[in-house]
Amino acid sequence: MKILHTADWHIGKTINGQSLLEDQKYVLEQLYEAVKEHKPDVVIISGDLYDLHYPSKDAMVVLEDALSKINLGLNTPIIAISGNHDGKERLNYGEKWFAKSGLKIMTDYHDMFKPVVMNDIHIYVMPYFTPADIRQAFGNKDIHTHQEATDYIVKHMEEVMDDSKTNILVGHLFVAGGESSDSERPLSIGTIETVSAQTFKSFDTVMLGHLHHPFAIQSDYIFYSGSLMQYSFSEQNQAKGYRLFEYSESSFEQNFIPLTPKRSFHVVQASYEDVIHENITIQNQEDYFHFKLTNMDHVTDPLMKIRDIYPNTLQISRQDYEVKEDEIQLDVHALSDIEIIKSFYSHVTDEELSGIKEEKVVQLLEKAINKGVDE
Amino acid sequence: MKILHTADWHIGKTINGQSLLEDQKYVLEQLYEAVKEHKPDVVIISGDLYDLHYPSKDAMVVLEDALSKINLGLNTPIIAISGNHDGKERLNYGEKWFAKSGLKIMTDYHDMFKPVVMNDIHIYVMPYFTPADIRQAFGNKDIHTHQEATDYIVKHMEEVMDDSKTNILVGHLFVAGGESSDSERPLSIGTIETVSAQTFKSFDTVMLGHLHHPFAIQSDYIFYSGSLMQYSFSEQNQAKGYRLFEYSESSFEQNFIPLTPKRSFHVVQASYEDVIHENITIQNQEDYFHFKLTNMDHVTDPLMKIRDIYPNTLQISRQDYEVKEDEIQLDVHALSDIEIIKSFYSHVTDEELSGIKEEKVVQLLEKAINKGVDE
Repeated sequence: MKILHTADWHIGKTINGQSLLEDQKYVLEQLYEAVKEHKPDVVIISGDLYDLHYPSKDAMVVLEDALSKINLGLNTPIIAISGNHDGKERLNYGEKWFAKSGLKIMTDYHDMFKPVVMNDIHIYVMPYFTPADIRQAFGNKDIHTHQEATDYIVKHMEEVMDDSKTNILVGHLFVAGGESSDSERPLSIGTIETVSAQTFKSFDTVMLGHLHHPFAIQSDYIFYSGSLMQYSFSEQNQAKGYRLFEYSESSFEQNFIPLTPKRSFHVVQASYEDVIHENITIQNQEDYFHFKLTNMDHVTDPLMKIRDIYPNTLQISRQDYEVKEDEIQLDVHALSDIEIIKSFYSHVTDEELSGIKEEKVVQLLEKAINKGVDE
Repeated sequence: MKILHTADWHIGKTINGQSLLEDQKYVLEQLYEAVKEHKPDVVIISGDLYDLHYPSKDAMVVLEDALSKINLGLNTPIIAISGNHDGKERLNYGEKWFAKSGLKIMTDYHDMFKPVVMNDIHIYVMPYFTPADIRQAFGNKDIHTHQEATDYIVKHMEEVMDDSKTNILVGHLFVAGGESSDSERPLSIGTIETVSAQTFKSFDTVMLGHLHHPFAIQSDYIFYSGSLMQYSFSEQNQAKGYRLFEYSESSFEQNFIPLTPKRSFHVVQASYEDVIHENITIQNQEDYFHFKLTNMDHVTDPLMKIRDIYPNTLQISRQDYEVKEDEIQLDVHALSDIEIIKSFYSHVTDEELSGIKEEKVVQLLEKAINKGVDE
């Protein structure tokens, strides 16, 4: 029994206005070739197939094409769950027809306690949920954290679990201790989003999505496949690919197999002059760049000039900018939205943002974020 | 051979902010019962399944449910084409899987010359197109009107047509002489949108969508099914339903069969006092109303007060409003956008809007309209 595990495709993602659709098609073509070569019994996609709840029509065409080539073209079953970026109703549109061809798009919380049975392998799915989702779906008022919600679900899975089988869990969540990158959106605001690895001890293998690093967690039974490709500069030099699991009666083997991207992400520190005169070592001018530049005080329109040479430059920033004393010094890219707001609040008022004020800000923030990704 | 013909579902349509989704589910349930009762060999849907290119997730759930109950639940084939309200990429998402169960969502212009063959019946489909769509798809620069585009397509259909068979055309278009209502959006701006009935003389039967009146055209071989339900006050007292076609070797029969809506549309002319004191004859207070009222000069918030009694009042208008001499007198509901703009222009400038100015306005208008319905 062979399983190919992938996750976090984020079809339709853009970075600073640049669409990554061509990059995604390029890597998905390789993933298709990998399925053709390895002939897995099933392909598992652990959530975040789309980048937005409301995917563009171009993103829909790319996803449909990738799924149909693997499922219909190679006659390979697929089990996919929704992640925090997916709109459930849009992701599972057509699901009743898909299922007839072995493409299971699983988004319904009530399907979590019926494993997909493939010979001696029982596959449990855990589509992405918030604590509120589980509170509502199962009428349990005592669930307030991701840990409590996951505990509740796992407990009910354990009740139906057959220990004589190989039990696999497919989920989209943040295991405590996991290494995150800049391209994951927080699962929730104002509550701890992590779930302890201990939670999943009844399962033989846990195949996860959400964290984009394929080695985000060190464990012999919990695995992230990592994202389809690099999605932020914090992922430069990070291999991206898929995992291959092979189960036999006596043995279990897993391997991470990298895919080659169309373009890689690079952070380059240099003086503006060296970049513009090509006095730096760059292997592929078409790659994605973030230039951190010095000596650019009197340069106008630097991005335009740099893009003449490196057309896929996504970001430039000045390194010789002097921080004034009354400014807050924050690495905004490394902080969550609520952390940035709290720092600003205490900087301006000399008080901590807490209690009902913090709750209100969290509510507004959640509203603003959800408005951006769904109707 | 039995065919059930329906069109213009407009799932997700709202009128003055009121969602019609519950009404649509109610009528679709009856349509499902009709399919169950009549057991047609195929259900034909002649376009405008959705109301918007970018349907809401609730609209998607209603459409998926209606299609799956008929196609998977009753095992009945469906042939559906895209109308001017449908976004092709969103409508046909999943099409490759749907087709395996006999649900054909046909949006591709290159499929127009391959009829769907069902015994001796050959069904040609003509998804909605603009002249520009056909110009682009077939590289023909001489196509500028709906008539020219349709002539071009029909000519190529005729080249492959087998005259010994019963040839049916499924389309979404405006046949010249057809009776329109207030709920159709113009197919194009600034060019004539109608196509002559003569165009279709090679076909045995033409099953159309777009015009919402089931008897929009008097013909013995061209039929509109009419919309699923009333969608404007201009359709009050208009029956809505589906058509049933029966073909045998020696005979052909067709019938229009009405469906019962959850609520009807009514225009009521009365004095405000009579309405508010319920001195008018209303069969169902839950119906949709447009009240045209007199004697309401000093009433504040009339809509709120009337909705206390008739909760689904969609519109009220004053009948005792004196039109001042320098105002334009236009029935804006009966005119197209470009006609309203042209009237305004000539009222303000004493000149006609024409030539390059008119073209520019048409371009802007098309841009504004498309922005509203798609990304």
